[in-house]
Amino acid sequence: MNQSRFEVVPIGRIESALTDLASAPKQGDDGSPDACLVVEPALLEGLHGLQVDDQVVVLTWLDRARRDVLAVHPRDDVTNPQQGVFNTRSASRPNPIGLHQVEIVSIDGNRVQVRNLEAVDGTPIVDIKPVLSARS
Amino acid sequence: MNQSRFEVVPIGRIESALTDLASAPKQGDDGSPDACLVVEPALLEGLHGLQVDDQVVVLTWLDRARRDVLAVHPRDDVTNPQQGVFNTRSASRPNPIGLHQVEIVSIDGNRVQVRNLEAVDGTPIVDIKPVLSARS
Repeated sequence: MNQSRFEVVPIGRIESALTDLASAPKQGDDGSPDACLVVEPALLEGLHGLQVDDQVVVLTWLDRARRDVLAVHPRDDVTNPQQGVFNTRSASRPNPIGLHQVEIVSIDGNRVQVRNLEAVDGTPIVDIKPVLSARS
Repeated sequence: MNQSRFEVVPIGRIESALTDLASAPKQGDDGSPDACLVVEPALLEGLHGLQVDDQVVVLTWLDRARRDVLAVHPRDDVTNPQQGVFNTRSASRPNPIGLHQVEIVSIDGNRVQVRNLEAVDGTPIVDIKPVLSARS
């Protein structure tokens, strides 16, 4: 039934001191460095209204992930029983989209500095959304 | 810098009594009907471990949305000042991915019934993830 395909066009890239996937924390609250969302200059208008201290959800495309995996040991720990990928936050999944809730530290033009983002340097960003509890 | 493109392959479709985009609620908590996540049978293994009462985040591809819009009046209300799309949950955005937090009501093979999903019938599903506060 799903003959359709859709094309994701990155809206920017993550700049981070994290360069090594193996040493990257699995989740932001495991202790990640600050990082910068570098948004395409042509899309600058899309950031209008975002402010320091706002909580946002950043969607990334985890371009190094495997897309043909349907079951994993959560957190890459073989002592954890295998789970379906839709019951985990594993990067390996049919559409390797990462979800990261972060807080904005500063905004300078198309550069948005955020706290605790667990993605490696160069990761494509596909969307930014406000956290709903704050506003709609 | 973003010459790369990525291909999203739907993992399933939403089945819902909502068929009309204009009358659909803007957010799940505005009062949406229950809906069913119909996952591709070939991806059934990916659901392993999901249970009734689990909270999950469903990512959809809002295939009727405009992708060339960078500023909108939130909730389509012109009395709301225009905001950049990355500061709204508008469907209109460069990559029209919808985020929906829902609760699982029942699971029957590849059919996952959920509460309060504000997407119209036939909307492509691109991912399902557990809510992190519950587990990782």
